[in-house]
Amino acid sequence: MTLESRLFELIDLIRPVDATQEARAWERLDSLTKPPRSLGRLEEVAARVAIVQGTDRPRISKKIVLLMAGDHGVVEEGVALFPQDVTWQMVANFTGDGAAINQICRSVGADVRVHDVGVAKDLSDFSGIEHVKVGFGTANMAVGPAMTREECAQAILVGVDAARRAVSEGYDLLAIGEMGIGNTTSSSALTAAFNGADIPAIVGPGTGYTDEIRAKKIDAIERALAVNDVANQDPLGVLAAVGGYEIAAMAGAVIGAALEGVCIISDGVISGSAALSALRIAPAVRPYLFPSHCSAEPAHEVLLDAMDLEPLLRLDMRLGEGTGAALSMAVVDAACEMMSGMATFAEAGVSGADE
Amino acid sequence: MTLESRLFELIDLIRPVDATQEARAWERLDSLTKPPRSLGRLEEVAARVAIVQGTDRPRISKKIVLLMAGDHGVVEEGVALFPQDVTWQMVANFTGDGAAINQICRSVGADVRVHDVGVAKDLSDFSGIEHVKVGFGTANMAVGPAMTREECAQAILVGVDAARRAVSEGYDLLAIGEMGIGNTTSSSALTAAFNGADIPAIVGPGTGYTDEIRAKKIDAIERALAVNDVANQDPLGVLAAVGGYEIAAMAGAVIGAALEGVCIISDGVISGSAALSALRIAPAVRPYLFPSHCSAEPAHEVLLDAMDLEPLLRLDMRLGEGTGAALSMAVVDAACEMMSGMATFAEAGVSGADE
Repeated sequence: MTLESRLFELIDLIRPVDATQEARAWERLDSLTKPPRSLGRLEEVAARVAIVQGTDRPRISKKIVLLMAGDHGVVEEGVALFPQDVTWQMVANFTGDGAAINQICRSVGADVRVHDVGVAKDLSDFSGIEHVKVGFGTANMAVGPAMTREECAQAILVGVDAARRAVSEGYDLLAIGEMGIGNTTSSSALTAAFNGADIPAIVGPGTGYTDEIRAKKIDAIERALAVNDVANQDPLGVLAAVGGYEIAAMAGAVIGAALEGVCIISDGVISGSAALSALRIAPAVRPYLFPSHCSAEPAHEVLLDAMDLEPLLRLDMRLGEGTGAALSMAVVDAACEMMSGMATFAEAGVSGADE
Repeated sequence: MTLESRLFELIDLIRPVDATQEARAWERLDSLTKPPRSLGRLEEVAARVAIVQGTDRPRISKKIVLLMAGDHGVVEEGVALFPQDVTWQMVANFTGDGAAINQICRSVGADVRVHDVGVAKDLSDFSGIEHVKVGFGTANMAVGPAMTREECAQAILVGVDAARRAVSEGYDLLAIGEMGIGNTTSSSALTAAFNGADIPAIVGPGTGYTDEIRAKKIDAIERALAVNDVANQDPLGVLAAVGGYEIAAMAGAVIGAALEGVCIISDGVISGSAALSALRIAPAVRPYLFPSHCSAEPAHEVLLDAMDLEPLLRLDMRLGEGTGAALSMAVVDAACEMMSGMATFAEAGVSGADE
């Protein structure tokens, strides 16, 4: 049995949410001591979590960011501002508690678990990370497929397993994050491939590009889409051709969370392209998928539109690592506390609107 | 000595922030293991807190929402959807831990302190609130001043004292919130008076108004501005004429926080009008004042523009109570953790951008 067929067997097991929960959620929200719908997006988020959890008292007890790291062969094309070594150096920084994601997770009460899915360096002597390497960086997508379909399926299954393990440990709100020098090029290619979006319009400033790098990036994406004939590929084929190990693992985490019936939050533009890949490969993940923020990258707006998801935060963040997803966990948490803990008009003896 | 002169003596004691801290803040932020400025608004907030705290390692250790309650005589004009009793009923709900603000504060790790500044009912047997009543509801601003200047100064001083007390107890991030049936009418009047804004354009749906109530609201505001000759009043005179006890107390809390050199977060459109009043009465409060969200009320955008403040959150919330301010405390907290806890490139041994 191939990994690909194992993956699709698992995808077939994703259950839909119970549609009758929606009315129940709004009935409770509208009974609480506030003018109906006056908490806006907070109520919408609470209702979505309630539907997933099958209760009108949604609750978040343990939160985790599943951070996937991988390298990209396309850096050969000169598309990145930082050297490739920064990927493993940042993995070391995550384990040393020195990165932005570590601080934001501490602040919101979430854990972080770092996975070496495809870093281009032997990290087997690193402690404090999950050793789930599928390959030492992808191949250069500008000259051929970044991964084979089996490699891609393997990386997706890494994410599926990571999410399922987290749920078995009691985590009930997951998020995805990433580290991988060159991965905005991959993410832009996925966005263009899945949406037919205009490439120059979605190639943003990345993490501080010059015009020269931007031109190389656009050129590499155009060649990657052509050489891999992505227009004639199924979603798994697209992800294998122009994705990355960490992107595939994040898509897998979305699938794994959906399999376990747990909410999962996507982060910035890279994890957004992973979420879109998951949606195209396994449309049943939709009810379990929550967007967090809209980053400063132009591709992110395109991605969110394609997924028909409205972000919670717009703070011009464009770092990745899961930072926006972790921050939005505080909003999801507050939304659930609100819905579950508030008194109703009847309970509190508060008068309703004048008739 | 009048309360008004005591207030202005205190205002004169507000110290400016140390302007040299700004360069120091950005020097540290740009040295951390992330592409410069890639955390967007989070970095801007961290820098602002750092400047106020006079350090490049800003820190939030204790958070509190100062919730001010008061009633409005203008409800006689039929401008409110809910009966006036809802003000005291909600005060009871706050003390019973049943309101939205209680749940959101629990979620973000903040305390709430409720002040009866001007509720139109004797609450002296209520436990769990601060008994600082200045009056039993304001007078109807559509026929004369809502408060005398001395009453207004007294309510402002209630807020000054509340903020100073909180700081003396170790709170280092304050927020303001309110409860007061009819107070969007007061807030819209303040916004129009201070900005010359078009009244129909800023009178929004409130907490569920009909067209009939909206027309009454616009009429009451127009009469209030005319009968009180607000165009010829100083800022304290404007606040006395068309403000409210809870609005004046919130303005006072902003002044008190500034006096103590501590950051304070405004909430929705009502607290925004209080923040604007504070800025007009005491321009020196500016560096200490942080906006939280932009509510669904049209006046809020006008207010934020008038204050030249960019909100952190846009979640279509329009409840008040300090809910948006409390939620944004999570963002401010995360921003400070990020700035203080991250490793620098040198500390983490991470390579910088390729030259």
